[in-house]
Amino acid sequence: MEIIRTVEAMQRRSEQLRASGSTLALVPTMGYFHEGHLELMRVGRKRCHTLMVSIFVNPTQFGPGEDFKSYPRDEKGDLAEADSVGVDIAFVPNTDEMYSAGSQTTVHVGKLTTHLCGRSRPGHFDGVTTVVSKLFHITKPHVAVFGQKDYQQLAVIRRMVEDMKMDIEIVGVPIVRETDGLAMSSRNSYLSAHEKRSALSLRKSIQLAATMAKGGEQSATRIKEAVEKLIRSHSDTVIDYVAICDPHTLDEIDTLVGESLIALAVKVGKTRLIDNGLFGEPPSHE
Amino acid sequence: MEIIRTVEAMQRRSEQLRASGSTLALVPTMGYFHEGHLELMRVGRKRCHTLMVSIFVNPTQFGPGEDFKSYPRDEKGDLAEADSVGVDIAFVPNTDEMYSAGSQTTVHVGKLTTHLCGRSRPGHFDGVTTVVSKLFHITKPHVAVFGQKDYQQLAVIRRMVEDMKMDIEIVGVPIVRETDGLAMSSRNSYLSAHEKRSALSLRKSIQLAATMAKGGEQSATRIKEAVEKLIRSHSDTVIDYVAICDPHTLDEIDTLVGESLIALAVKVGKTRLIDNGLFGEPPSHE
Repeated sequence: MEIIRTVEAMQRRSEQLRASGSTLALVPTMGYFHEGHLELMRVGRKRCHTLMVSIFVNPTQFGPGEDFKSYPRDEKGDLAEADSVGVDIAFVPNTDEMYSAGSQTTVHVGKLTTHLCGRSRPGHFDGVTTVVSKLFHITKPHVAVFGQKDYQQLAVIRRMVEDMKMDIEIVGVPIVRETDGLAMSSRNSYLSAHEKRSALSLRKSIQLAATMAKGGEQSATRIKEAVEKLIRSHSDTVIDYVAICDPHTLDEIDTLVGESLIALAVKVGKTRLIDNGLFGEPPSHE
Repeated sequence: MEIIRTVEAMQRRSEQLRASGSTLALVPTMGYFHEGHLELMRVGRKRCHTLMVSIFVNPTQFGPGEDFKSYPRDEKGDLAEADSVGVDIAFVPNTDEMYSAGSQTTVHVGKLTTHLCGRSRPGHFDGVTTVVSKLFHITKPHVAVFGQKDYQQLAVIRRMVEDMKMDIEIVGVPIVRETDGLAMSSRNSYLSAHEKRSALSLRKSIQLAATMAKGGEQSATRIKEAVEKLIRSHSDTVIDYVAICDPHTLDEIDTLVGESLIALAVKVGKTRLIDNGLFGEPPSHE
């Protein structure tokens, strides 16, 4: 596996590969790999001749008081795992390489970023769309692979790619969960054994919403109330949001019509976790 | 000359050309060509195997009350002129092709856009950087050519390309002037014969600043005052701004140190004109 650390070298390598007829897939990550990341790589592996993974803990998508400094990092371990699933090129830039001195350009997606995590993490999605745009300009992929755990992030990136006419196919990959149901996340490493049990309330919430909808409940408000009650029954949980939305616009809904998205952000101890699931009937296409 | 009207077809054509080893130059324009545009094309012609020109009057860079609707258009004439200077591909999309339904993504450059035209045309540069980013993603050029008449636009685009790690060389081309000194502009077509005479005050202002600096004047304020007096002595002129700036940061300066930029925007009758020039000593590199 090649390791590339500069923008210039990465651009030259991608140009060379494209010119030789190779198709390129990119998996953009912040590192500290778990099974979720490896699954993204396996999907990318099947899609293109050349599989690239980027590892960059992007400072601009963390707010003040968030965990940028303590975010877990393990470059050596990550590179070994990437190699083991068939990654061809790891792009591992430092912050100076990604942000030029005097840098002042941002990519902003509008309405979609005002919902859910956008509300509790102002500026977060500008950081994401800006860095992902840069990574696309640097690695020049044909295909880029993202996880559905960050449902809103995936929706925002799809919107950006469509709006900005980027010639890149975005592939979403279903959430990978621990055997107990907890969605895989690098931040799970922060959790104590006790907190891990409380963290299961996120998964249970999604199951509860699905069960209620299946039983005929049509009121999003009543489902939200039941979910909030369930989460609060677990110790050390503070709800950031529970939202039931249109899966495309992310607008919150009052009444279930067809397939809906439940998205949650919950602080368990000091760790903010997110999870989501689609539930209810997808609209029939007659 | 090929004429391409869809994003999809343009991307496929550019991919094909790049894969065959062709280098691509783009001249992005709003059409209604004059000698200034043709000069950009001649420069692009020399730089790459394939010369592309885009013609698109971009609605998002016009403010409310500005001249989007009346902006002069002559597609047929433009295509003939482009052909005559050796353009290979004209990309001529319509607005629906450039802006998807529900489009909500913008590219924003910070401090550089707060000066000069950014102050009198809020949102203008977001429109420019957003559409130029899209044109880059669609036409995939190695080189893009811009005129120095829009000095701030060129500076903003250079900043965006550097910040966003776009793998594109930006080439600036000196202002082309009428024989009487008026900077070429599609908007000159709005001017009456009488207004054209008043419009010469812009060029004279740049000459006056250079003459004063050569004569030892170091106060930017005194130069500005003399220039404003000169412009006001011409009928039907309303000054939008006269600014003397650092040519890199576009910050206004009080005292000339090395090379300076004078930038002007003046309404002559109903037509807003801009012009600029570098003057004073460039810093010596000892």
